[in-house]
Amino acid sequence: MKIDVVTVGTELVLGLTVDTNAAELGRALAATGVEVVRHVAVADRAEAIAAVVSDALARTGAVIVTGGLGPTRDDITKRVVAGIFGKPLVRDPGVLQSLEARFRRFGRPMPAMNRSQAEIPAGASVLPNPRGTAPGLWIEDMGRLAVLLPGVPAEMRGLLHEEVLPRLARRVGAAGAAPVIGSRTVRTTGVPESALAERLAGIEERLAPLTLASLPGAAGVDLRVTAWALGADEAAHRLDEAVAALRAVAGSDAYGEDDADLAAVVLDLARARRISLAVAESCTGGEIAQRLTAVPGASDTFLGGVVAYADRLKTDLLDVPGGLLTTPGAVSEECVRAMVEGARRRLAAGAAVAVTGIAGPGGGSDEKPVGTVWLAASCGDPATIRTARRLLPGDRGEIRARATQAALDLLRRLLTNQ
Amino acid sequence: MKIDVVTVGTELVLGLTVDTNAAELGRALAATGVEVVRHVAVADRAEAIAAVVSDALARTGAVIVTGGLGPTRDDITKRVVAGIFGKPLVRDPGVLQSLEARFRRFGRPMPAMNRSQAEIPAGASVLPNPRGTAPGLWIEDMGRLAVLLPGVPAEMRGLLHEEVLPRLARRVGAAGAAPVIGSRTVRTTGVPESALAERLAGIEERLAPLTLASLPGAAGVDLRVTAWALGADEAAHRLDEAVAALRAVAGSDAYGEDDADLAAVVLDLARARRISLAVAESCTGGEIAQRLTAVPGASDTFLGGVVAYADRLKTDLLDVPGGLLTTPGAVSEECVRAMVEGARRRLAAGAAVAVTGIAGPGGGSDEKPVGTVWLAASCGDPATIRTARRLLPGDRGEIRARATQAALDLLRRLLTNQ
Repeated sequence: MKIDVVTVGTELVLGLTVDTNAAELGRALAATGVEVVRHVAVADRAEAIAAVVSDALARTGAVIVTGGLGPTRDDITKRVVAGIFGKPLVRDPGVLQSLEARFRRFGRPMPAMNRSQAEIPAGASVLPNPRGTAPGLWIEDMGRLAVLLPGVPAEMRGLLHEEVLPRLARRVGAAGAAPVIGSRTVRTTGVPESALAERLAGIEERLAPLTLASLPGAAGVDLRVTAWALGADEAAHRLDEAVAALRAVAGSDAYGEDDADLAAVVLDLARARRISLAVAESCTGGEIAQRLTAVPGASDTFLGGVVAYADRLKTDLLDVPGGLLTTPGAVSEECVRAMVEGARRRLAAGAAVAVTGIAGPGGGSDEKPVGTVWLAASCGDPATIRTARRLLPGDRGEIRARATQAALDLLRRLLTNQ
Repeated sequence: MKIDVVTVGTELVLGLTVDTNAAELGRALAATGVEVVRHVAVADRAEAIAAVVSDALARTGAVIVTGGLGPTRDDITKRVVAGIFGKPLVRDPGVLQSLEARFRRFGRPMPAMNRSQAEIPAGASVLPNPRGTAPGLWIEDMGRLAVLLPGVPAEMRGLLHEEVLPRLARRVGAAGAAPVIGSRTVRTTGVPESALAERLAGIEERLAPLTLASLPGAAGVDLRVTAWALGADEAAHRLDEAVAALRAVAGSDAYGEDDADLAAVVLDLARARRISLAVAESCTGGEIAQRLTAVPGASDTFLGGVVAYADRLKTDLLDVPGGLLTTPGAVSEECVRAMVEGARRRLAAGAAVAVTGIAGPGGGSDEKPVGTVWLAASCGDPATIRTARRLLPGDRGEIRARATQAALDLLRRLLTNQ
């Protein structure tokens, strides 16, 4: 089954609101075996909505429309879609009763304008919305299906999961072996996209009919493999095989699957070996500690850290020799080594990681350009230390995010002896 | 001028990635006087991209397409759009040179597959992209315009502001007085949305024809006022007046305008008074330091901080008396006071801020439920200390974000004597 998603709202095309409903719908529909062909956002204008919905119905025969079901004048979705189906709007006594009951429950009289929310296209099914005043509507006629949902994310989500997906799943199931769209991801870091692509040469043909996408970002390169319209069992089986094949190629550059977080991976590794963790940060300014403590339950393994942004604090809090900060300077292998050992000793931690570098936009030189970062990871038992220099691309925020990820990755490789 | 926006990526229709580029494009284009008619997201499939781009060119004559310009096989946007314009792809020596230079700069050989990124549709203008390997492309022929931009948000944003908007602004300006959609924001924090709404009663009528939206989030409540399709001068004038009126109502609860960042505001206040800053964090785990150091130039004012996640470190690194951690416990006014004074003394800072609390999901009790946070801000000259207790809503991430914002706000109010 194929479907288009249309989100209605002038605020969406103006970019005043990020369209999270579209992503939520895409995920939920794909998991149910319904393929979203297009997502279109349009302004609250009758002719624009009519053109997009008509086009969707002509191409795929099915459309989910969110937004524009409220009581105010700019809420015109229902009227426009009723017009496309050639149905008049009629008052639904059940909807009117539940609206009145809702206002009574909150102890307020129902404003006259809300009565319009009890009007539905003749023949449409009402999808009750306990979270708000606008019910969902299921309009089906002559082989065409339009589902209208409110735009408020919590109301949209509730109606989607409680009313819409069960109906669509029955339809997909009735059509035979339900083809599903499934997707799995192998997450890598520390290897450039093009180097990974060379190692992956030829694998795409072996994975077919699954498709492979390589998605670079500050966290590394994600390899996402997608099964389009296979039976659920076959899709799951082939995706498992594909993930195994990709992990074999990625080797130690892969740190996890799907929504794995490198900070959680590092915490799990340290926890398993009963090693406590500490950090010493300069250019990342707290971001490594922030990433680790974002993981629920981090407190049994992560002790804490020092953000030694000023050079004086590198000496006062981490025992970095003052002379070393002059030559070779704070952004050097010698300094990051002293930082990581200082952190491990001062915080009495089993292992530590440290970062010093130039996040920009200022502070770069020919010898040490913006993006230059020194990393160190140290473990007490057995006593091991690793250092690495990186030249990271991007703006200040990206350099810091990449340096954070590189630091966590150095610690991961140290803890797994890779 | 009207335009369609097309974002390409299977991950977008599957909902695996939230489409932030579309919102960024919508905002920037509206502010330039270019109306986005539709935003369409499609999968990385040649026929789907071709249908959507052809349709956009037929309806509005202009389209911006993001995504699918990378070096791998699923990056097909350029080829598809060149096909629509009937142009062959030709190697551009300038692009090839800058690609090779980029790889040299990062000390790596250029993989063969990146050579495809030097191919451009014949006659297209290259929009240089200093942030990545895929240049933007401006393809104009027979009254139709297609602008291709990479999908990586930082690269898209850079090309948009540096190359695309200036060209579009010249075009819109040449077409005569363009009505613009403009929007300004007054940012508040530390006051509940409903309390702010009561203080704002009646102001909406005074601001008409501008519209007012109240947008609550983890950073506080933003008040956004929007001018729809007024002349540029009138819009600017009315928006200035509206911002002044909203600031008057918000008083000391307003910390800035538009994209103001509270961390930058705090740094500016401290810098003006030549007061150095330090932080001591427990439940926020480094997020306050991260926010402060995300601001370029923070190093002249922010010294550093201590993330004392384990109770032992609150004593070892911040001199919190050990007995106090048993009774009244780590989440208490006494503890946060000791933490902030310890940070100011140990780091020899002019002012400091400290946070201790329960971010969840575990660790809550009847007396101290999840979301309970104690904050303290301290300044040495004149010697002042303020503390506050908050019960913050949301999940772990939200509680930490709200606690970070509340800590920065306590410091802001201390530094401005408000």
